[in-house]
Amino acid sequence: MVHTDYLWFNTQQRQEFIRITDDVARIVASSGVTEGLALVSAMHITAAVYVNDWEDGLIQDFQAWLEKLAPAGLPYRHHHTGEDNGDAHLKRTVMGHQVMIPITAGRLDLGPWEQVFYAEFDGCRKKRVIVKVMGE
Amino acid sequence: MVHTDYLWFNTQQRQEFIRITDDVARIVASSGVTEGLALVSAMHITAAVYVNDWEDGLIQDFQAWLEKLAPAGLPYRHHHTGEDNGDAHLKRTVMGHQVMIPITAGRLDLGPWEQVFYAEFDGCRKKRVIVKVMGE
Amino acid sequence: MVHTDYLWFNTQQRQEFIRITDDVARIVASSGVTEGLALVSAMHITAAVYVNDWEDGLIQDFQAWLEKLAPAGLPYRHHHTGEDNGDAHLKRTVMGHQVMIPITAGRLDLGPWEQVFYAEFDGCRKKRVIVKVMGE
Repeated sequence: MVHTDYLWFNTQQRQEFIRITDDVARIVASSGVTEGLALVSAMHITAAVYVNDWEDGLIQDFQAWLEKLAPAGLPYRHHHTGEDNGDAHLKRTVMGHQVMIPITAGRLDLGPWEQVFYAEFDGCRKKRVIVKVMGE
Repeated sequence: MVHTDYLWFNTQQRQEFIRITDDVARIVASSGVTEGLALVSAMHITAAVYVNDWEDGLIQDFQAWLEKLAPAGLPYRHHHTGEDNGDAHLKRTVMGHQVMIPITAGRLDLGPWEQVFYAEFDGCRKKRVIVKVMGE
Repeated sequence: MVHTDYLWFNTQQRQEFIRITDDVARIVASSGVTEGLALVSAMHITAAVYVNDWEDGLIQDFQAWLEKLAPAGLPYRHHHTGEDNGDAHLKRTVMGHQVMIPITAGRLDLGPWEQVFYAEFDGCRKKRVIVKVMGE
């Protein structure tokens, strides 16, 4: 069985981190797959999907750290195209743009603190995440 | 066919890199899957699973590099919760928390130097890695 | 259905970024899978496979950024083995060594700007990428 769905985002801020564990679980439940894998993947190249803690302090740590590793406002060559989001491409690369979620006995088989997040680095526009569920 | 198993770790040191290629191969063999994919994914958010070289010098290079990119001992906001492992969350993000291993003709279809590693950044406690095998 | 194929590379320069979206699409088409997933994974540990923009300025930004995060020419411990590619192992880790591509209605289900790239960091030798397609 293969089941496909999409999550839409249109954040109010340029950078925003959104917990999507429940959205993924809902799609998996509606797929009927009880044993398998779910791909959760950002379809835009300045957004990330990652698994980590649902804790505001840590999310701020991630954001401060990414700003240090891949600062906004540098004269990126990509900006010669008219874009101003070079840093967003780099930040999303550090976080990763997709995860595979195991499905066991009808549920997301996650550890006690694992939560799925969508990380937007160039928001205020419509973007999608694909959730592709495969299994039996 | 879908087959699920778990690897348990309880490292003696806070940071430890452990080769798990043979453990993954053993689980794949016992699954009966001869063509497919195996997800190998850390279920805890301060540990990584990655593929790279089985060479002690390189492992030390990784550790020194991660300490530079995401130092321990900084005043991370996450520490307001009582935790002291902010750096471990960042380090595991650089390394990645999961890999997909292709299975071809009953074996892990890895390149000549590819080895699967578990990287613990906040050990001395029980943690799990899920191995989910899917195929025919 | 499971289908396996390999892409071969032998770059003329040590570092080279190569768009492989069409190669992956061709393999998926020949697999007959119309709904499923394709793993695209570097089989060598100094190469990456990633998804991002097909824009030369951004590719140069990636390369300059990786040189800053993981410089060549440092006295990496890995070099005691006779190798000189310590930085290449680190650079490939930042970019990631594999992606999962969703397949929907017989096509790669990619967002408008998503392109699949092979990133070589220690080239001038033969290397492989595995493409493993699974679905119905």
